[in-house]
Amino acid sequence: MNDRELRALLEEVKRGTLSPETAEARVLDYVREAPFEDLGFARVDHHRVVRQGFPEVIFGPGKTTEQVVTIAERIVAHGHSLLVTRTTEEVFEAIRARLPAAQFHCGARAVTLRQGDVRPGRGTVLVAAAGTSDLPVADEAAVTAEMMGNAVDRLYDVGVAGLHRLLAVRSELRQARVVIVVAGMDGALPSVVGGLVAAPVIAVPTSIGYGAHLGGLAPLLTMLNSCAPGVLVVNIDNGYGAAVAACRIVARSS
Amino acid sequence: MNDRELRALLEEVKRGTLSPETAEARVLDYVREAPFEDLGFARVDHHRVVRQGFPEVIFGPGKTTEQVVTIAERIVAHGHSLLVTRTTEEVFEAIRARLPAAQFHCGARAVTLRQGDVRPGRGTVLVAAAGTSDLPVADEAAVTAEMMGNAVDRLYDVGVAGLHRLLAVRSELRQARVVIVVAGMDGALPSVVGGLVAAPVIAVPTSIGYGAHLGGLAPLLTMLNSCAPGVLVVNIDNGYGAAVAACRIVARSS
Amino acid sequence: MNDRELRALLEEVKRGTLSPETAEARVLDYVREAPFEDLGFARVDHHRVVRQGFPEVIFGPGKTTEQVVTIAERIVAHGHSLLVTRTTEEVFEAIRARLPAAQFHCGARAVTLRQGDVRPGRGTVLVAAAGTSDLPVADEAAVTAEMMGNAVDRLYDVGVAGLHRLLAVRSELRQARVVIVVAGMDGALPSVVGGLVAAPVIAVPTSIGYGAHLGGLAPLLTMLNSCAPGVLVVNIDNGYGAAVAACRIVARSS
Amino acid sequence: MNDRELRALLEEVKRGTLSPETAEARVLDYVREAPFEDLGFARVDHHRVVRQGFPEVIFGPGKTTEQVVTIAERIVAHGHSLLVTRTTEEVFEAIRARLPAAQFHCGARAVTLRQGDVRPGRGTVLVAAAGTSDLPVADEAAVTAEMMGNAVDRLYDVGVAGLHRLLAVRSELRQARVVIVVAGMDGALPSVVGGLVAAPVIAVPTSIGYGAHLGGLAPLLTMLNSCAPGVLVVNIDNGYGAAVAACRIVARSS
Amino acid sequence: MNDRELRALLEEVKRGTLSPETAEARVLDYVREAPFEDLGFARVDHHRVVRQGFPEVIFGPGKTTEQVVTIAERIVAHGHSLLVTRTTEEVFEAIRARLPAAQFHCGARAVTLRQGDVRPGRGTVLVAAAGTSDLPVADEAAVTAEMMGNAVDRLYDVGVAGLHRLLAVRSELRQARVVIVVAGMDGALPSVVGGLVAAPVIAVPTSIGYGAHLGGLAPLLTMLNSCAPGVLVVNIDNGYGAAVAACRIVARSS
Amino acid sequence: MNDRELRALLEEVKRGTLSPETAEARVLDYVREAPFEDLGFARVDHHRVVRQGFPEVIFGPGKTTEQVVTIAERIVAHGHSLLVTRTTEEVFEAIRARLPAAQFHCGARAVTLRQGDVRPGRGTVLVAAAGTSDLPVADEAAVTAEMMGNAVDRLYDVGVAGLHRLLAVRSELRQARVVIVVAGMDGALPSVVGGLVAAPVIAVPTSIGYGAHLGGLAPLLTMLNSCAPGVLVVNIDNGYGAAVAACRIVARSS
Amino acid sequence: MNDRELRALLEEVKRGTLSPETAEARVLDYVREAPFEDLGFARVDHHRVVRQGFPEVIFGPGKTTEQVVTIAERIVAHGHSLLVTRTTEEVFEAIRARLPAAQFHCGARAVTLRQGDVRPGRGTVLVAAAGTSDLPVADEAAVTAEMMGNAVDRLYDVGVAGLHRLLAVRSELRQARVVIVVAGMDGALPSVVGGLVAAPVIAVPTSIGYGAHLGGLAPLLTMLNSCAPGVLVVNIDNGYGAAVAACRIVARSS
Amino acid sequence: MNDRELRALLEEVKRGTLSPETAEARVLDYVREAPFEDLGFARVDHHRVVRQGFPEVIFGPGKTTEQVVTIAERIVAHGHSLLVTRTTEEVFEAIRARLPAAQFHCGARAVTLRQGDVRPGRGTVLVAAAGTSDLPVADEAAVTAEMMGNAVDRLYDVGVAGLHRLLAVRSELRQARVVIVVAGMDGALPSVVGGLVAAPVIAVPTSIGYGAHLGGLAPLLTMLNSCAPGVLVVNIDNGYGAAVAACRIVARSS
Repeated sequence: MNDRELRALLEEVKRGTLSPETAEARVLDYVREAPFEDLGFARVDHHRVVRQGFPEVIFGPGKTTEQVVTIAERIVAHGHSLLVTRTTEEVFEAIRARLPAAQFHCGARAVTLRQGDVRPGRGTVLVAAAGTSDLPVADEAAVTAEMMGNAVDRLYDVGVAGLHRLLAVRSELRQARVVIVVAGMDGALPSVVGGLVAAPVIAVPTSIGYGAHLGGLAPLLTMLNSCAPGVLVVNIDNGYGAAVAACRIVARSS
Repeated sequence: MNDRELRALLEEVKRGTLSPETAEARVLDYVREAPFEDLGFARVDHHRVVRQGFPEVIFGPGKTTEQVVTIAERIVAHGHSLLVTRTTEEVFEAIRARLPAAQFHCGARAVTLRQGDVRPGRGTVLVAAAGTSDLPVADEAAVTAEMMGNAVDRLYDVGVAGLHRLLAVRSELRQARVVIVVAGMDGALPSVVGGLVAAPVIAVPTSIGYGAHLGGLAPLLTMLNSCAPGVLVVNIDNGYGAAVAACRIVARSS
Repeated sequence: MNDRELRALLEEVKRGTLSPETAEARVLDYVREAPFEDLGFARVDHHRVVRQGFPEVIFGPGKTTEQVVTIAERIVAHGHSLLVTRTTEEVFEAIRARLPAAQFHCGARAVTLRQGDVRPGRGTVLVAAAGTSDLPVADEAAVTAEMMGNAVDRLYDVGVAGLHRLLAVRSELRQARVVIVVAGMDGALPSVVGGLVAAPVIAVPTSIGYGAHLGGLAPLLTMLNSCAPGVLVVNIDNGYGAAVAACRIVARSS
Repeated sequence: MNDRELRALLEEVKRGTLSPETAEARVLDYVREAPFEDLGFARVDHHRVVRQGFPEVIFGPGKTTEQVVTIAERIVAHGHSLLVTRTTEEVFEAIRARLPAAQFHCGARAVTLRQGDVRPGRGTVLVAAAGTSDLPVADEAAVTAEMMGNAVDRLYDVGVAGLHRLLAVRSELRQARVVIVVAGMDGALPSVVGGLVAAPVIAVPTSIGYGAHLGGLAPLLTMLNSCAPGVLVVNIDNGYGAAVAACRIVARSS
Repeated sequence: MNDRELRALLEEVKRGTLSPETAEARVLDYVREAPFEDLGFARVDHHRVVRQGFPEVIFGPGKTTEQVVTIAERIVAHGHSLLVTRTTEEVFEAIRARLPAAQFHCGARAVTLRQGDVRPGRGTVLVAAAGTSDLPVADEAAVTAEMMGNAVDRLYDVGVAGLHRLLAVRSELRQARVVIVVAGMDGALPSVVGGLVAAPVIAVPTSIGYGAHLGGLAPLLTMLNSCAPGVLVVNIDNGYGAAVAACRIVARSS
Repeated sequence: MNDRELRALLEEVKRGTLSPETAEARVLDYVREAPFEDLGFARVDHHRVVRQGFPEVIFGPGKTTEQVVTIAERIVAHGHSLLVTRTTEEVFEAIRARLPAAQFHCGARAVTLRQGDVRPGRGTVLVAAAGTSDLPVADEAAVTAEMMGNAVDRLYDVGVAGLHRLLAVRSELRQARVVIVVAGMDGALPSVVGGLVAAPVIAVPTSIGYGAHLGGLAPLLTMLNSCAPGVLVVNIDNGYGAAVAACRIVARSS
Repeated sequence: MNDRELRALLEEVKRGTLSPETAEARVLDYVREAPFEDLGFARVDHHRVVRQGFPEVIFGPGKTTEQVVTIAERIVAHGHSLLVTRTTEEVFEAIRARLPAAQFHCGARAVTLRQGDVRPGRGTVLVAAAGTSDLPVADEAAVTAEMMGNAVDRLYDVGVAGLHRLLAVRSELRQARVVIVVAGMDGALPSVVGGLVAAPVIAVPTSIGYGAHLGGLAPLLTMLNSCAPGVLVVNIDNGYGAAVAACRIVARSS
Repeated sequence: MNDRELRALLEEVKRGTLSPETAEARVLDYVREAPFEDLGFARVDHHRVVRQGFPEVIFGPGKTTEQVVTIAERIVAHGHSLLVTRTTEEVFEAIRARLPAAQFHCGARAVTLRQGDVRPGRGTVLVAAAGTSDLPVADEAAVTAEMMGNAVDRLYDVGVAGLHRLLAVRSELRQARVVIVVAGMDGALPSVVGGLVAAPVIAVPTSIGYGAHLGGLAPLLTMLNSCAPGVLVVNIDNGYGAAVAACRIVARSS
């Protein structure tokens, strides 16, 4: 209910076409009940598609299969597209039993079901990954960005230890509207990419590594300290978050 | 043995109705033996119900099933209520074999057996949880508070990323005597709740998250640094501790 | 503007005694402007006294002297009591130049100016400190609790290495409505106090120590892991926060 | 030297209008010398304005005054705008002695000197700060974004402990092309803002806080774990980096 | 080979009763070969019993069963007592197949086989444990101290949350030559014990706990910061190391 | 008041030579007042000399000069020896103004004043230091051990990078009753010493180092993980605590 | 394509024996395509053997068996030697099914297949290990160094707690061209070795240990803080990296 | 005293040209006294030049000026070259008062005095630094390597954010025998250099940075996790250690 709607409602009250009791109820309703659906264990945020252009996404870990399936059904029942991240083939099977159109993305560990309500972005989202081991996270980013209506390019295994591999794709890098750079180990790739391109760079550290890698804290710190100004960082392995941010950026490019 | 009892005992000695030997034994007995029962591997603190209004609670991890069952039997044999936290269905079955009245709380991973000795608190304990994944910890808090004789309300999935969900339950929040706020991820919910209510707020970080979440250290730090003054914090996933503290607060509300 | 006021306003619109334009402005005004005062660099929350029983408190660090003085004047001008924490004698002098009734609390490093609007709590707040070095933090807690209208008792230097010092004050401990326990070094005191009393225990770790004390993280961790159930923790050196929480608890004891 | 230029050069060699020796020198020159200027202690990257739309910026710490002044002169001599971050009034005086048009921004601790070469962005950069103590970092972001040719709005002291202050500026938040959110303490503000707006959100943790704040690591972790998807994070106190990223985003909005 | 033996050898060379070649060989032999036995993957330190009163002990983790069994056989073959720590019943079975006299200590996860060469200590080693969950570590300490020839007393479940349990065993504590205090959770027990007794106190943090317990780092830090002076600390769960140190202390009590 | 005294008192009550009122007062007095002296900001533990053979020691940091001097006077007035650690020449001058016999130990930053009540230990305490920079901590240990009545030997600059320096003092090492090993940098010395001697080894990490030395955490971790079994560790720079522990060990060697 | 080749190419263009189009293609080809092979999920760096004397090595973790096998086949197809590290017997079987000459090194968890293109180093690489548990890492280093054409000596179980074991192999240590020292626990061995030899020392911390060992961070810190100057460090358990560095050193010894 | 010398001595004893007493003294002398000089607070290791080709170097921090000067005099008096690191101009003046030939290196904060005994290395040591702020550490490395007799090249401000600056010096990089790479911020430079050259690469993280830079831990972790195999790491800011290691490598290149 925006300012205009509030005014219209009050005009109706004045004209006598709406009783104060009904008007009150409508104002309170809007604030209290409309934008989500209370399942007891979850309040599904159906309003998010209005606020942010894409419906609520289900983060898999810590939820029972039954909980995931129930929320998924409610989202689809409202006509929204479905995206479940960090899930398993097992959960996928339970979803498919009730939503046969659902698809599983093995590398990205995601379940999707597309319905007609996505606002497409403008320009390409480029997903670059430093090593083969970073692919699951890069795939999660790519699947998410595609689900949100964007064109996605992938450049994999372009880490800085073989710089010629990266230099060879310089022009692809420079044509992207936004670049998501996924890297484990030393996390050095975003600094080099950030120096090569003028587009926004979103760095995603991965938990691939060992020893003093600290489960991804090492590349996370590298990226936060990037000597290339303007590199933006998301949480370790958070390909999903990087893609959402990329979509926010591309969506605004109108 | 308080000051009054000590004086009475000494008066008896003076009157000759109590021998010094007996008096000495009573004084020493009180200090040394009465308040606990030594099982070798454990000293069950039967005195706690006197000191703190609820008997000793069994923390499950690190104890063998046999140890848990033995302590449980001793507590019940003394007429106290039983609460076992962080336990498994397996241990529950072993308890039930000897204490058929025991109940298992699946979400909270707790075993309870209520007997008649709980001092009820005054006022409602409200348990709010930011996300669906925080439910096991929230349930542990709720079950514990109920076992200790309190009325409990639950508000689940009211995290700050969809603020309208929280604003919709503002009046419930404001009516509670004490609010337990359970949150993983960024742990931001207690700061917002702490600014909305005047009641004491107990924040419980959960280990739900990934990457730089550090097993719950991230929301723990958030809560310790809350910009809402007077937010109180317990250990990660410690729903039990939060409930005990809430009961101490509510019990004092007389 | 509560439900009743909203209804009255709508009735007036219906009766024609209030134009929709004016009604709209009032609804929006309430939401947007009333509860704070925008100084550009700060939005003073004059509404807090209504929500939480005590006006906004000024946290000294990171503000210029001029900023502190300006906010202080605005708070006092609204008829509220003034409390500035973690400040210096220098800032105090600047405040006193404009607010001659202000007082400086040297140990607690706080400035206060009491005006008539505090709702007194019920019952005593007890502040216990483990060592002499913990006194500044304990004093900050005591001054804050007193400013908020509570009776405060102090028990200093009762650390666990000389247990007889603590056992000697057992009855004082047991008479408090809420106990604030301030401790640096090993932070063991709250565990022992938590086992002795039934009242809520708020533990405040201090930054006093050296080496692997990590600026107070060591006693903070000790307190979060307290083997006495129901110990509540605030940030390192946060005597102010402990006192606000204590006041929330005591205020509810009606 | 792009593909077209390389081809042109080779054509000239073929036509005999360019000797192979000269051609070789030009190819090598391009690669080796043109894009930067070697001062011994620094290689000033004059090429950056071509690659990224703004010349090299001088990061103050760890450089002697003489080094800062020398690099500043070289940048200005090339006709570029000057920005020195994290500097002092003392260094500013040394710069002004040689570059009288330089200006000092006291809150932001920055020196600027604008010359005519900035490509303006499209749309407003909004800088929101949680508390008064976060202003220096917010100012650094604002000054940087302005130097790079953008319109900037400021919203200060809108932290989540007094949620009404934030809700009052909801429409300003929703009109921005990109929002920079600066917050110390618990760092909870970006999560709430991220849930309210659809624009990209760049979160800047500040080192304001104490105890378990860990010099800003606490709000940094909060932001990385934001429950609002798509929140992007930069290093602690890095107002400059946030602004550069915001400019990359806005610049692409054409 | 001490100074006296070296002189005697040189005298023999002078007298001609020993050739220089033989003398050289003896000197080099002593340094190079005698005190250990090279198995390729291990150099068994048979000399340790001479230097430190007990033969080399086998630390189980990271060794294959075959390696453990082979080293065990070599130790027993030299007539020394055998102690294997942190091992499993599986490894024990493999050892018993070749050394039928070996025994398994289930709680302590240790294998022992006593032979006649231990120098007994003087005075009792007291092992106190805070909670039932700390028993495996306490048992490892007790078994080790017994294997090294000492009298051992055990006091289990005497944590500080029920202080009367500890005060009841004060006289036992005061009679020990050395006290090993095992505690997880908050690790507060050694501070209290250290204040009650005059004997050396060796504190052993355990990994029992959760959340901000950090695998035992929390009680480790507590113990290192003990407000009781003179508390000595060993690594987390290192019951073995505590017992070896206790034996060094008791052995010196002659 | 031990068991015997309690019985005697009760016999007196029985005989009528002691009134119950007086008896009660005596019992309570003993518990409450005798063993310490309440100065308001401190409770001086005069009882410690009885419990642990040496009076309370004043830890300098965090106390005002006036507080240190007042406590010092009370300790000396009770006829005890005085030891103030981690103090400054300035505080020393203030002490000397009231206690002219006080002495300052510049290297150890300690003030001492010996009076006649120390129980001497048996056997030598050896203090070994790895480098010249570790001397202040080593000196604190040596001064403390001497104040407590022990013979002390010093071996300085015997770090493992020049192993021949350590091997040259092997016999001195082997003759000590207890060895305190002080080391910064890598903290490797205690492992080597622990392998060479049979006596108890107390390792003291120092804060000398830089970079990944983490203020002494690096050698602290080294020592806790010593491959020589039975190495005992105290807090970083805690020469005082090491000496107290050494005295507890030596005192028990009777 | 070096300077000489570029000149030759340009001369050909001048002479008309090479068209500018062809010349352009060759220049671009060199930069863009030659040195690697794009498999989609990986870009195999066949150029590395030219740049660094050994082909790309496959790091096992995070790759699917199919990915490992495919990359392995491409490397072998180019005539290079194959080395797969941190792999399993299962992956080995999959490789052997397609490359029957492949061999599995059980201790080192590595797969190798030698072909004729390795440039041998000069001088011996010595691999020393502190304990039996460090063998897998030491073996990885040894296998890698051998695959790269070097002579390798092994000295295992020479930890500093039994110093005589190390002193006995002093001459072997002194004869090596480079020494790799592998150690878990306290990580003290490289400091002692670094003081004994003049050759470069490469320290490899291992994750063997427990408690405050922090998965190898403890010995890593020890080694970084080595009091023996010139000790070089690689990541925890990184036997492979240590060997590559050793080979770089030995290869340069010509 | 090597094997040959020991044999010769024993032959002399046999021939009667050397008495056993004298022989014993010589053997013991060698082990105990010759290689160092005991100043009480320091044991100067004059033997190091024999073992490792360069005399003991004085690490400045934690030593008094008098201690530094005294050790410096002893080193020079033995005819060795002098190097004092991490020192100040003040200490330099005190040294020069007694050793007029001493020189101060302002950038490197080092004092040197060269005498004739350095064994020159073979090949050039290249020192590359990522940014201007890294120069003090780079200079320390360069001065140290020069003092030890090596040719040194410097390449400063070649960080990866402006990759063309680094690519321009590729041939210089490839000609070095060993490359020391100094970098703060993200520490990404060694990974890129390690991929470009075949020589050994020694990475030195610096403490230049802020926020989540953690005093240099961020680039330290980056370097330990380098995706370029064979990168070797030293402690933060340890230019000296890197140079010593480089000299060990170059010295072996004969």
